[in-house]
Amino acid sequence: MSYASPALNRLAEPSSLDGIAIPSLPDAAPCAVRGEVVVELSMRHAGTRALTLRYELQGPAGAPVVFVAGGISAHRHLAASGVFPENGWLNDLVGAGRALDPARRQLLAFDFVGADGRLDAPIDTADQADAIAQLLSALKIVRLQAFVGYSYGALVGLQFAIRHPARVETLIAVSGAHRAHPYAAAWRALQRRAVTLGQLQCADAQGLSLARQFAMLSYRTPEEFGERFDTAPEIVNGRVRVAAEDYLDAAGAQYVARTPVTAYVRLSESIDLHRIDPADVRVPTLVVAVEGDRLVPLSDSVALVEGLGTLGQLRVLRSPYGHDAFLKETDRIDSILTSALRAAGDPA
Amino acid sequence: MSYASPALNRLAEPSSLDGIAIPSLPDAAPCAVRGEVVVELSMRHAGTRALTLRYELQGPAGAPVVFVAGGISAHRHLAASGVFPENGWLNDLVGAGRALDPARRQLLAFDFVGADGRLDAPIDTADQADAIAQLLSALKIVRLQAFVGYSYGALVGLQFAIRHPARVETLIAVSGAHRAHPYAAAWRALQRRAVTLGQLQCADAQGLSLARQFAMLSYRTPEEFGERFDTAPEIVNGRVRVAAEDYLDAAGAQYVARTPVTAYVRLSESIDLHRIDPADVRVPTLVVAVEGDRLVPLSDSVALVEGLGTLGQLRVLRSPYGHDAFLKETDRIDSILTSALRAAGDPA
Repeated sequence: MSYASPALNRLAEPSSLDGIAIPSLPDAAPCAVRGEVVVELSMRHAGTRALTLRYELQGPAGAPVVFVAGGISAHRHLAASGVFPENGWLNDLVGAGRALDPARRQLLAFDFVGADGRLDAPIDTADQADAIAQLLSALKIVRLQAFVGYSYGALVGLQFAIRHPARVETLIAVSGAHRAHPYAAAWRALQRRAVTLGQLQCADAQGLSLARQFAMLSYRTPEEFGERFDTAPEIVNGRVRVAAEDYLDAAGAQYVARTPVTAYVRLSESIDLHRIDPADVRVPTLVVAVEGDRLVPLSDSVALVEGLGTLGQLRVLRSPYGHDAFLKETDRIDSILTSALRAAGDPA
Repeated sequence: MSYASPALNRLAEPSSLDGIAIPSLPDAAPCAVRGEVVVELSMRHAGTRALTLRYELQGPAGAPVVFVAGGISAHRHLAASGVFPENGWLNDLVGAGRALDPARRQLLAFDFVGADGRLDAPIDTADQADAIAQLLSALKIVRLQAFVGYSYGALVGLQFAIRHPARVETLIAVSGAHRAHPYAAAWRALQRRAVTLGQLQCADAQGLSLARQFAMLSYRTPEEFGERFDTAPEIVNGRVRVAAEDYLDAAGAQYVARTPVTAYVRLSESIDLHRIDPADVRVPTLVVAVEGDRLVPLSDSVALVEGLGTLGQLRVLRSPYGHDAFLKETDRIDSILTSALRAAGDPA
C-alpha cells in the first residue's frame, strides 16, 4: 500500500458542511468530525487508483474505536450528533446506553470505495478492507476494538480480519458470509440487468429504481409482506396493481434520488465477487445470522462458523425482517453487540 | 354463459397441423385430437368477449376425462402422442402405467384464455374456469373425473370447483392456493415492470426476457442454485458475470421465442387477481404443497385446506425444485395422482 502525504491524510473538518463554525457543545454532547483521506489503493481487479476516502468519526478522543460498515447503500454518517444533526443510517443503534454509545467509544465509518459513482470498475471486498486499513493509518488508529459489519459490511469485515488481523480485536459479522450465495448472486445479477435495460435508452433512473425494488424483496420476507400488504389488487388504467406497489415505488424513488447508477452497479457486483476461506480469518469472530434471510441462507452462516474453528461463534435470530433485521431488530442486535464488545475488553 | 352455435363448437381436427391426413394408428397408440371452440365469455373485468378456445384431447373415447391445467406458460399439448409427436409440457407425467395414462383415460387441456396474446385486458381465474365449462359443454363432456391443476392451473381449478361443482368429481390443486400471496404478487408486479421498461424503449423482448429470468428465481430454490451454480463469478468486458447467468439467459430467450408479451402480462396479472373463499369450494380437493415453494408459502396451503373443511386434504412435499416440483418430482407426483384418482372412482 502506498500512502498519500501526511498533509493530505487528515483533512478533518470539524465544522458543518456549509462552513459555519460550530458552537461549543455541552460536555455530554459527543463530538464528531468528518474528513477525507486521499490514498493510493492497489485493487484486485482495477489496478492502482488514487481514491478519496470520506469518513466520519464520532465520540471522545482516546476512547476505543469501533469501525461500523453497513450495506452497499450505507455511508459514513451513522447517527445524528450535535455536529451533524441529520439522522444516520444506523440511528436506532447508536446512543446513550447502547453498545454503540458515542459517549463511551469512538465510532468510525466511511463511504465505501465506489460509493460516489466515480470508480467504474470491479471493486473487491478486499479492496474495501485495504482502504479501511489505510484510513486507520492516516487517522493514527493502531487497532480497532471491534469491526461491526452488516451485510456488505460483514463481507468487508471478514476481508479485514484476514488481511489486517493485527488491527482489530474482534469482528462482528451480521448477515454476511464467506461467499455470495449463488441464488442471491443470480438475484443481484438480474437487478444489474434491470439497470442495463434502463441505460440502453437513457432511462437510467427507471432501471435503477426497478433494480432497487427487486432488491427490497430480497431484503425483506414474505412474512412481513403478508402482514403489510394483504389487500386485494386494484385495476388502474386497465392494469392490475398489487398492494405493495406504492411501497415499492417509494423505495425505488428514494434510492434513485441518492444513488449514482455506477455506484449501485459496482457495489452490487462487489458482493458477488466476494469469496474468502474462513480458515484464513485470524480474529475472534461473532457471526450473526437471521433465519429467513433470503440472501444469506443459514446454511452459509453455519459453514462460515465451522470454517472459523475455535475463533468462530454463531448467534441466530428469527425475524420477519430477514436480511434487514440488523436495521430493524435494534434492541436484540444491541444486546448482541453489548455482549460481544464486553468480551472484547469493555468494562462489565 | 352464451354458447356459440354447435357447428362452431367442435372443430376437432384429427390431423396434423399442416393438413396431411394422419396414418391409421396401431391399437395401442393413444389417439389425440386438437380443436377449437368459439365461445362468448362474460368476463369479470373485461366485459363479454368472443374467444377461440384451443384444446387437445388425448385418449380413448368413453374413458373418464381428466382436465389438466398448468402454469401460465403451459398449453394444450400435454404430452407426445402418435398424432402429435412433439414433447408436451407434462411429458414426464403422462404415459403407460402413470396416473395420467392416455390409454386408460382421456386427458383434456386447453390454451389459457389470453395465451395467444390477443386479449389485452384483465383476465380472472374465474373467467378461465367458465371458459373450461363452456369447452366441456361443447365437447359434450358432462363431468370430469378430476381436475388436475398446477400453479396457475390450481387457481383455475379452485374457481372451477366453486363455479361448476357438478362438473367435476375431485380437484387436485398443486402449488396454488386461495389467494396470491402478497410477497409473490409484489415479485410478479416487478416482473411486469421489467416488461414495461422494455416496452417503453422498444426493447420488448429484452424486457420480457428479464421478467422471465426473475420469474425463474421464484420457481426454483436457493438449494438448487447452490448445487448447480457454485462457481466463482467471472469478469467479462469489465463487468461481473455470475455463474447462473448463462442459464438465465437461455431461460429468457426460450421464453421470449414462444410467448407474446401481452399473454405474459395478462396471465401474470391473472394470478394476482385470484382470490377465493375456500369455504365456497364444494368438491373434494387434494391440496399438494411444496415446502420451500417461494411463491406459495406452506402457510397459505394450510389456510386453504383449513378453509375447505371436510372436503380438503393436504399433502406436503419437500423438494429443491420449489414451485416447479410438479414438473420435476414426477415419480412422487405420479404416486399422489394415482392415489387421488383411485379415490375418485378408479379401479384399484
